[in-house]
Amino acid sequence: MADSSTSMRLRLPLLCIILEVILIILFGALVEYDHDTDPKLWNKNRTSATNDYENEFYYRYPSFQDVHVMIFVGFGFLMTFLQRYGFSSVGFNFLIAAFSLQWATLMQGFFHGMHNGKIHVGVESMINADFCTGAVLISFGAVLGKTSPVQLLVMAIFEVTLFAVNEFILLSILGANDAGGSMTIHTFGAYFGLMVTRVLYRPNLSKSQHRNSSVYHSDLFAMIGTIYLWMFWPSFNSAITQHGDPQHRTAMNTYYSLAACTLSTFAFSALVNPEGKLDMVHIQNAALAGGVAVGTAGEMMLTPFGSMIVGFIAGTISVLGYKYLTPVLESKLKIQDTCGIHNLHGMPGILGAVVGAVTAALASPEVYGNGLQRVFGDVETGQWKPESKGGFQAISLAVTLGMALFGGLVTGFILKLPIYGAPPDTHCFEDGLYWEVPGEEEGHSELHEVATPNEVEKLNS
Amino acid sequence: MADSSTSMRLRLPLLCIILEVILIILFGALVEYDHDTDPKLWNKNRTSATNDYENEFYYRYPSFQDVHVMIFVGFGFLMTFLQRYGFSSVGFNFLIAAFSLQWATLMQGFFHGMHNGKIHVGVESMINADFCTGAVLISFGAVLGKTSPVQLLVMAIFEVTLFAVNEFILLSILGANDAGGSMTIHTFGAYFGLMVTRVLYRPNLSKSQHRNSSVYHSDLFAMIGTIYLWMFWPSFNSAITQHGDPQHRTAMNTYYSLAACTLSTFAFSALVNPEGKLDMVHIQNAALAGGVAVGTAGEMMLTPFGSMIVGFIAGTISVLGYKYLTPVLESKLKIQDTCGIHNLHGMPGILGAVVGAVTAALASPEVYGNGLQRVFGDVETGQWKPESKGGFQAISLAVTLGMALFGGLVTGFILKLPIYGAPPDTHCFEDGLYWEVPGEEEGHSELHEVATPNEVEKLNS
Amino acid sequence: MADSSTSMRLRLPLLCIILEVILIILFGALVEYDHDTDPKLWNKNRTSATNDYENEFYYRYPSFQDVHVMIFVGFGFLMTFLQRYGFSSVGFNFLIAAFSLQWATLMQGFFHGMHNGKIHVGVESMINADFCTGAVLISFGAVLGKTSPVQLLVMAIFEVTLFAVNEFILLSILGANDAGGSMTIHTFGAYFGLMVTRVLYRPNLSKSQHRNSSVYHSDLFAMIGTIYLWMFWPSFNSAITQHGDPQHRTAMNTYYSLAACTLSTFAFSALVNPEGKLDMVHIQNAALAGGVAVGTAGEMMLTPFGSMIVGFIAGTISVLGYKYLTPVLESKLKIQDTCGIHNLHGMPGILGAVVGAVTAALASPEVYGNGLQRVFGDVETGQWKPESKGGFQAISLAVTLGMALFGGLVTGFILKLPIYGAPPDTHCFEDGLYWEVPGEEEGHSELHEVATPNEVEKLNS
Repeated sequence: MADSSTSMRLRLPLLCIILEVILIILFGALVEYDHDTDPKLWNKNRTSATNDYENEFYYRYPSFQDVHVMIFVGFGFLMTFLQRYGFSSVGFNFLIAAFSLQWATLMQGFFHGMHNGKIHVGVESMINADFCTGAVLISFGAVLGKTSPVQLLVMAIFEVTLFAVNEFILLSILGANDAGGSMTIHTFGAYFGLMVTRVLYRPNLSKSQHRNSSVYHSDLFAMIGTIYLWMFWPSFNSAITQHGDPQHRTAMNTYYSLAACTLSTFAFSALVNPEGKLDMVHIQNAALAGGVAVGTAGEMMLTPFGSMIVGFIAGTISVLGYKYLTPVLESKLKIQDTCGIHNLHGMPGILGAVVGAVTAALASPEVYGNGLQRVFGDVETGQWKPESKGGFQAISLAVTLGMALFGGLVTGFILKLPIYGAPPDTHCFEDGLYWEVPGEEEGHSELHEVATPNEVEKLNS
Repeated sequence: MADSSTSMRLRLPLLCIILEVILIILFGALVEYDHDTDPKLWNKNRTSATNDYENEFYYRYPSFQDVHVMIFVGFGFLMTFLQRYGFSSVGFNFLIAAFSLQWATLMQGFFHGMHNGKIHVGVESMINADFCTGAVLISFGAVLGKTSPVQLLVMAIFEVTLFAVNEFILLSILGANDAGGSMTIHTFGAYFGLMVTRVLYRPNLSKSQHRNSSVYHSDLFAMIGTIYLWMFWPSFNSAITQHGDPQHRTAMNTYYSLAACTLSTFAFSALVNPEGKLDMVHIQNAALAGGVAVGTAGEMMLTPFGSMIVGFIAGTISVLGYKYLTPVLESKLKIQDTCGIHNLHGMPGILGAVVGAVTAALASPEVYGNGLQRVFGDVETGQWKPESKGGFQAISLAVTLGMALFGGLVTGFILKLPIYGAPPDTHCFEDGLYWEVPGEEEGHSELHEVATPNEVEKLNS
Repeated sequence: MADSSTSMRLRLPLLCIILEVILIILFGALVEYDHDTDPKLWNKNRTSATNDYENEFYYRYPSFQDVHVMIFVGFGFLMTFLQRYGFSSVGFNFLIAAFSLQWATLMQGFFHGMHNGKIHVGVESMINADFCTGAVLISFGAVLGKTSPVQLLVMAIFEVTLFAVNEFILLSILGANDAGGSMTIHTFGAYFGLMVTRVLYRPNLSKSQHRNSSVYHSDLFAMIGTIYLWMFWPSFNSAITQHGDPQHRTAMNTYYSLAACTLSTFAFSALVNPEGKLDMVHIQNAALAGGVAVGTAGEMMLTPFGSMIVGFIAGTISVLGYKYLTPVLESKLKIQDTCGIHNLHGMPGILGAVVGAVTAALASPEVYGNGLQRVFGDVETGQWKPESKGGFQAISLAVTLGMALFGGLVTGFILKLPIYGAPPDTHCFEDGLYWEVPGEEEGHSELHEVATPNEVEKLNS
C-alpha cells in the first residue's frame, strides 16, 4: 500500500538529522545561560540574604509547564479527532513542536536582542519558544491529514522565522501589547496556515473524504486536548506578563472569558442543529475561542465583565463560523481547513486584536494608577497617549495579517514542490502511509488498515 | 430516533443565553478586582523594593490549576466509564462547571462579605468557585445518564446557591474548619445529589440497563479521571489553607491518606469478589475516598500516621459500600446512584467531618505552638477551647446534612417538572439523544447509535 | 477461565493489608513533620515579617506535582500499549506506586539520617519517595504482563530497600551528584528489572505472543503517558537540585536534551524500517531517552549545546536498541523485556552517568563562580578536585550496576517461588486473569474476554 513517492525512508531521517545538526552548531556558537540560569552571574554577590525566590524560575516555571502541556497534549490530542490519523496528529505535533521550539529560540533570540553576540536563554525564552511553536501548530491544523512530516518541518522552518520577524515588528518597533498572542500567535498562525492550505488545494480530496471524520473514541481523545487547552489558557495568556498584578489579572480575565465562551458555544451548537443536537466539533473548538479573544487585552483593565462579553461573542462567532463559513471557504475560496482554524484562531484572533486596541485606547492613569507603566511600558517617555497606543495596536493587526498571508503564500508554493512525499488524494487522513499501524482488535488487523466503507461492506456480506 | 420531548433545539440555547446574560449583568454591577489583581491597589506604594512574590498569585495559582484539572478532567473523565455516555459525561461536566464557577463567584462573594457593595475577585475566589463547582459535579454523578443538560443547569442554579448559604453558616457563623471541604463540598454534594436522584426515581430504568455499564476502553478513559483526581487531591485540600506550614502539611497528609487508601481499596476489591478479581468500579472510585476523608483534618496535626489510618478506613468503607450498600439503596430506598457518589463522597465525607471534629477537639497550644491560631483562627479571642471547637465541627456536619437533604428534596421536585426534556426510560445513558454521534468504525456507524443487544444479535445473524 | 493457582482472592488482600498495617505502625513510631510542615517549628519565631514564601513548599511543590504526574499518569499510561493489559498496566502501576512511596519514605528516611530517632518528612521526602517509586516502575516495565500483583508488591519491597542502600552509598558515602537519577533511578531500576525478568525467563511465552502487541487505540493511550513524561521531565531532573540557578538550569538543559532527542528518534525510527515507516514503540519510548541521559549532568554547566548533543545520541542509541539489541537480548540472553526498558532507561542511564562524570571532571571555579559549591557541595573542605569528583561519579555507576544486578538476581529467585499466583504462559498479557473485564462493545462482551485469534476466526466463519 505504500506509494513509493510517499516513502520517508531517506527524506525524513536526512531532514531531521541535518536540521538537528545545524541547530546544535548554532546553539554551540550563539546560546548562553542568562542571568538567572548561570551560576557565576546568579551567585555573583551571594550573601546569606540572597533571595533565591526572586529567580525568574519561581515566577514563571509553573506557567511554562502549563503552556508546555497545551503545546504537546493540548494541540496534539485536539487533532486526534480523525478516525485514522491519531498517530500522525499526536506524533507529528510532537515532532514539529520539538523542532520549532529549538529553531524559535534562535530566531527570537536573534531578533529580540543579542547580548555581546550571544542569545541568552532562561524560562522566558522557553515560554516564548513554546508560544512561537503554538503558531506553527495552528497552521498544522489547517493542513492536517494532507501533508507529509517532511512538508510540515519545512513549513515550520519558514513560519518560525517569519513569526520572529512579525513579533519583532509588533513588540519592538510598534511597541504593541500582545502578551497572550491574539495577534502574534493566533492571527498569524491561522492566516499563514489558511494561505498554505489554499495554495495546496486538492480538487480531488473527496477521494479521502470518508476518512475525514471522527469515530466515537477519537472524539473522546480529542476532548483530552480541548479540556487541557481550556484549563491552562489562563496560564498561557499570563505567562510572560509582568510580575504581580498583571500576571494575576490576566489569568483571571482569561478564566472568565472561557467560562462565558463555553455557555455560548453550547447554546449556538444546539441552536444551529436541525434536531437541536450538540456537535462535538463545536465543543472541541469553539469553546476555546474565549481564550484567543482575550490574548491581547487580558493583561489590561478589561474587567471580568468585559472578559465575559468578549468570551461570549467569541464562542458565538466561532460556532457560526464552523456551521456557515467553513463550507463556503472550501467551496468558494478553495480553502480546505481540516480543523477549522479560521473559526478557532482566525476570527477570534482578530476579535482579540480589536478588543486589545479598544481597551488600550481607553487606558488612563486614573484606572491603572502606578500600574500603568507596568502594563503599557512606554508611559514614562511622556509620548504615551491612549489613543495613539490604540492606533499602534490596530496597525499591528494589519501588519500581522499582511505578514501571515504573504508568508503563507510563499511557503505554500515551496511546499508544492513534488519532493516532500506528500500523500496522494486517495490516502489523505491515513496513518498507514507513515506509521506501522496495528489493527483495532485481535484477528481483525488486516481489515482496518486500508479498507474503505465499501470494502468493509463487501467483506461483511 | 430523537423523541421530540427531549429536543433541546430551543430550551438549551435559551437557558444558556439567558443565564450568561444575567451573569454578565451581575458581574458588571457587582464584581471588582481585589487588592492583588487591581493595578492601582497593588502598585499603590510601589518602590523598587516592592515584592511581587508576595502577590497571592504565587502562593495559590499552582494549586488553583491543579484544582481546575480535577474539576474539568478529573470529574469529567471519571464519568466517561459508561459505554455510550462519554460525550455527555465530559461535555455536560464542562458546561455545568463553566456555568457554576461564574454563579458561585457571585453567590460566595455575596455571602462571604461584600466590600462597599462590591465582590472582590482574585485567585482565592477562583479556587472557591471551583470548589463549589465540585459539589455540583458530585451531585451530577448521582443523576448521570438520567437527566438532560437543561435539568443539570437548573440543578446547578439551586445547588450553588445553597452551597454558598451552607458554607457561610459553617465558616462564618459556626467558625468551622473545612479547608478541603469534607463537609461543605463532599457531604453536601453527595446528599444533595442522592436526594435529587431519589425524587427523580425511575421505576423502569431497567429498560436502559444494558447501557448502564462500561466497555474496555471507556474504563481506561475513566482511569484518566481517577488518576488526576488522586494525584492533585493534595493540592485540592491545601489550596485555601493559610500560607506556609498549613498548606505544606495539608498537602502531605492528603498524600499519605490517599496512598494508604489505595492499598485498602485493592485489598477489599479482590476480597469481596467470588473469584478474587479486581473491579474497575472500586479502583476508579474508592481509591479516592482517602482524599475526601482528610478534607477537614488535613490542615491539622493529623500526622502522617493518622492520615494513613483514615485513608485505610475510607478505602475500606467505600469498597464495601459499592459492593453491599449501593444495591440496597437502590432496591429498598429507591436511590439510583449512577456513579456511587454515596460511597466516594457521602460516607467518606461524613468520616472526614468526624475525623475533623475529633482532631480539632484534641488540639492544644503544646502541639501547635504559635501556629495554633493560624489553623484555628479564633484563638486570640480567649474564648477558644478545643472541646467547643470540636463541638462546632460536629454541629457543622449536622447542618450540612440537613441543608443538603432539604435542598435536594426541593430541587428534585423542581427538576421533575416535565419541561426540561428529560430522557425517556428507554434512552437513558445514551449520548445519541443530545449529540451528533459518529459510529465506532467506518461503515458501522448506523449500527451502534441506538441498537440494544437484542437488535445487535438480530443484525449479526 | 480463572486458573485457581492465579486466584488473588486471599493472597492479594492479605498482602496489601499486612503491608499497610506494618507501614502505619512504623509511621506512627518513626515519622514526624519536618521544620517546614510542623506548626510549632515553622512559627517559632514568627513576627509580622515572617516570610512564608521561604517555606520549602513554594520552591518544590509545583515540581513535586509534575513528578507525581509522571509516576502515576506517565508510567501508568505508557504501559497501556498492550491490547489486553490496560487495566493491569495503569492499575498495578497505581498499586505498587502507592505502596512504594510509603515504604520509600521509611527506607530513605532511615538511610538519609534520622533526627533523634525520627524520620522528618516534607515536600523533599515526598519527591524522593516518588523518585524511588520511579525505579520500581521501570523494573515493572521489564516484567509487564508476566507477573501477578502479589509478585510486583514483593519485588517493590526488595527493590525499594536496595534503592535506598544504593542511594545512600552514592550520595552520602561517595558524595556523587545525581539529582535527576541517571544512576540511582534509571540505571538501577533498569538493570534490577532486567535481572528479575532474566531469572523469571519463560521459554513458552510464545503461547501468549498474540497478546504481546498493541492495537490502534491502546497506542494512543500509551502516547498520553509518553507525552506527560516528556513534558514534565524538566521538573523531574530539577525537583531536588538547589534553589535558584541550579533548579532553573537543570530544567532548561533537560528541555533542550529532550527536544533534540525527539528529532533523532523520528529520524532513526524511519531509517531502520524497510518501508520508512515510523514505529510507535520508538516514538513512545526512545523520545524520552534524552531526559534520562541528562539526569546527572543536568544541574551542571552542560550548556544547551551539550544537552542537545547528549539528547541526540540518547535517542539514537535507544531506537537502535529497540531494533537490533532487544531481539538479541531475548534470543541469546533469555531476557524478555516487555517494554524495552534497556533501551529507554538502561543504556541512556549509563550514558547519563558517563556524561555526568565527564562534566563533573571538567568543572572549575572559573566557570561556576560562587555557584560551584552549590552544585558540587563539598568544595569548601579544600579536598575537592574536579578529576577526583569525576572519578567518584564513575565509581558510583559501577556500584549501581553491581547493586542492581545482584539485587535483581536475589529478588528474581524469591519471585520464582510458586506461591504468588503468577500467570500461566498461556495467559500472560491478559487483564482477564486479575480483573472483571467488560467487553469492547454491546453484545460482544463474551467474545473478547478470552478468545485467541484462532477462536475469533472460527467464530467469524
